[in-house]
Amino acid sequence: MTMLSRRNPQLNRNGELIHLLSIEGLPAAVVQQILDTAGTFLSVSEREVKKVPLLRGKSVFNLFFENSTRTRTTFEIAAKRLSADVINLDIARSSTAKGESLLDTIANLSAMHADMFVVRHGESGAPYLIAQHCAPHVHVVNAGDGRHSHPTQGLLDMYTIRHYKKDFRELTVAIVGDIVHSRVARSDINALTTLGVPEIRAVGPKTLVPGDLKEMGVRVCHDMTEGIAGADVIIMLRLQNERMSGAMLPSAGEFFKNYGLTPDKLARAKPDAIVMHPGPINRGVEIDSAVADGKQSVILPQVTFGIAVRMAVMSIIAGNTA
Amino acid sequence: MTMLSRRNPQLNRNGELIHLLSIEGLPAAVVQQILDTAGTFLSVSEREVKKVPLLRGKSVFNLFFENSTRTRTTFEIAAKRLSADVINLDIARSSTAKGESLLDTIANLSAMHADMFVVRHGESGAPYLIAQHCAPHVHVVNAGDGRHSHPTQGLLDMYTIRHYKKDFRELTVAIVGDIVHSRVARSDINALTTLGVPEIRAVGPKTLVPGDLKEMGVRVCHDMTEGIAGADVIIMLRLQNERMSGAMLPSAGEFFKNYGLTPDKLARAKPDAIVMHPGPINRGVEIDSAVADGKQSVILPQVTFGIAVRMAVMSIIAGNTA
Amino acid sequence: MTMLSRRNPQLNRNGELIHLLSIEGLPAAVVQQILDTAGTFLSVSEREVKKVPLLRGKSVFNLFFENSTRTRTTFEIAAKRLSADVINLDIARSSTAKGESLLDTIANLSAMHADMFVVRHGESGAPYLIAQHCAPHVHVVNAGDGRHSHPTQGLLDMYTIRHYKKDFRELTVAIVGDIVHSRVARSDINALTTLGVPEIRAVGPKTLVPGDLKEMGVRVCHDMTEGIAGADVIIMLRLQNERMSGAMLPSAGEFFKNYGLTPDKLARAKPDAIVMHPGPINRGVEIDSAVADGKQSVILPQVTFGIAVRMAVMSIIAGNTA
Repeated sequence: MTMLSRRNPQLNRNGELIHLLSIEGLPAAVVQQILDTAGTFLSVSEREVKKVPLLRGKSVFNLFFENSTRTRTTFEIAAKRLSADVINLDIARSSTAKGESLLDTIANLSAMHADMFVVRHGESGAPYLIAQHCAPHVHVVNAGDGRHSHPTQGLLDMYTIRHYKKDFRELTVAIVGDIVHSRVARSDINALTTLGVPEIRAVGPKTLVPGDLKEMGVRVCHDMTEGIAGADVIIMLRLQNERMSGAMLPSAGEFFKNYGLTPDKLARAKPDAIVMHPGPINRGVEIDSAVADGKQSVILPQVTFGIAVRMAVMSIIAGNTA
Repeated sequence: MTMLSRRNPQLNRNGELIHLLSIEGLPAAVVQQILDTAGTFLSVSEREVKKVPLLRGKSVFNLFFENSTRTRTTFEIAAKRLSADVINLDIARSSTAKGESLLDTIANLSAMHADMFVVRHGESGAPYLIAQHCAPHVHVVNAGDGRHSHPTQGLLDMYTIRHYKKDFRELTVAIVGDIVHSRVARSDINALTTLGVPEIRAVGPKTLVPGDLKEMGVRVCHDMTEGIAGADVIIMLRLQNERMSGAMLPSAGEFFKNYGLTPDKLARAKPDAIVMHPGPINRGVEIDSAVADGKQSVILPQVTFGIAVRMAVMSIIAGNTA
Repeated sequence: MTMLSRRNPQLNRNGELIHLLSIEGLPAAVVQQILDTAGTFLSVSEREVKKVPLLRGKSVFNLFFENSTRTRTTFEIAAKRLSADVINLDIARSSTAKGESLLDTIANLSAMHADMFVVRHGESGAPYLIAQHCAPHVHVVNAGDGRHSHPTQGLLDMYTIRHYKKDFRELTVAIVGDIVHSRVARSDINALTTLGVPEIRAVGPKTLVPGDLKEMGVRVCHDMTEGIAGADVIIMLRLQNERMSGAMLPSAGEFFKNYGLTPDKLARAKPDAIVMHPGPINRGVEIDSAVADGKQSVILPQVTFGIAVRMAVMSIIAGNTA
């Protein structure tokens, strides 16, 4: 990618994390540091007083150019548990609507002594642009950009897998469903590769599995039975009906028949396989309720781990200087 | 109600309050405990530093499936004065719009280690459903569900009456206006009954006073003069124009002529009668400005007491375990 | 103005600031006090922990009857850095939509023990009305009312000028552009006059420069070259396309040709002249990018100073009693 062409903009000269823009290009040691730190924060959320003062007096701006209440909420909770002041900006209704450019908006907010921008944007690369142009004291976290990346989701998925499976280097991981529209899938594939997972499979119809995955070392399976056979981890993706044109997909019913995860299909995976999903789930479309609510589902633990991972990312980057 | 058929879901095995869903079924002792506790919080809001650390580090989620800035604000203030972290979710724009079910949304937020849900919902019973399905560490407060209940409004009304009238067991209370659409009226009638008020009157046109009230021990009056004669307390209700079809009501002008509280009509009540209203008031529709702004009006003290009552409810339920 | 006819409602009997409604009528000593106090807060925003406990436990309500994410954000940050609890009210969607009057809304929020209202309103004079009717313990800050006033913007502009130019009494200040629609221009002219600036110029086409400015001691220039010749300070205004009917202005292109600030035109001012703009800027309409991003531009420092000035205003009025 040209955006990463020169130096990795996420790291300072000492190789320390200063922004989280993408899992692509993150050294394994940095990923491990995030996961280790998240482990220490997991207990904070279980305390009576769920707060640590690591970001006290810091101003964290949630800049959601694309609406996502769920993701915004997870970052808001994570920042507040770190004792930060959180400012939610409903960017869609603000000065950008008056014709101000993205970089002018960012320059203005930086001048207010912002410490961190959590950015969700419909355009791939927007968080990179912001990180390259904002003041040196400001840290940027990508909370999802276009179809490109959703790195905190990728990291919480890694945390979940490590929690249940310990060693990445012996795993078979199947990612199933609408991969072509999924920034989660891209982030997961990058992270799994970085952590040394030997077999990554992308499972779904031809219209939803991009052709360039093979070049990334991913095994492409258009047959679900083959795709999840012997898998340790199954990551189901949300069928993004709202991003899809009708011609790409026959019907939700037909999709469920072929790729929806049912107890029958799950039986082809390892007996102790875990089932993951980034949420929100479409019951009866990509996943059967018996599986979503079943013993092998770790969908809700993913949400819990997600708060700890976001706390870890925020506290690590806030502690490093450009 | 079938929802309350087995055990009262608001109380734990020791009879302590763990959720506030409805005044119906609340023991008088619990109501009195809430009012007593509210009394201690009233002074907090009058201090220089209006905060107590009782909910420090707790995460309170305002889940407003139905928009109500006023009610949301009262809960937000109450929670912040208890030092909680408050997360406002604009649910109408979030995952529910993407087809996620209510219970999946709740399960996800619970997994983020939420401590409390303040729920406003257009459907009667939604807060019950949430309380029955959420994780045991989460407490639910009903901030208004359909036409069913608005328990904190009922409790603040009781606090107001107790503040000015001391003994509930000798009072005549008239509730006037649009009773059929009012969850406030239902909550008030339940609370007044629980606290031993001997005469409760429901006053209004036949189209706005439901027939089943007599079974609840309420005296139904379609004549305003009769309805407020000798009353100690007059609770005026908002004419919910926005919930009404035109056929039910002749006109705002005609309603005011027959049931609007004017100084003339108020003169039929006891000389020291107090006038209440849940707000927002429709001046010249259900209440004359001379009454709303007059000496007998306690409408603004109700608002002040409302913050203290919500602080009391939140701190009590947060202190009890399922 | 009739609103100020009797006593200045911004000051208590001791002449201390209790509300900030307009710069008009503010004694120079009070303006200087605000600027001096802002200077002490500037360093707070540069600390690791950007907080002082001056408003701890106070409830600050942002009442934005007119949407302005940028201005609301600056006040929210300022209040949080003073440790206040901030409640954002999206008034457009609240009870006012149900027909409640402005003063009833204010009375209700006061009854919740609000300490401060930050008010943005489309109608000139609305913050005055609120200040005159709210409870004595409540302080009001005008965050922009109609075409009337935007006093914190005026004050931050004065802070900026003092920071770079020290002595007001020898300056030539040119305000350029859409003056007729600009509450910023009115506030700046009042402040500059109060602080003793000997030459204030209003520069723009006849349709955008109001005739009554001469009575305020302002020199009106319809020629840009004349208007900025020898100026120490140039305040460019935003072309408020959204408030303008087409007939008043030929085109953005023609405006830029005649009044847009380019390096060529800027060369007519003093060599050390500073260029200011309240933002958001329209690049290529009222200001050339080479100027906006150039050495003489202090547009971003204005934003930084704005936070400190708002902290100063809030802390000063909160410390004085009616």
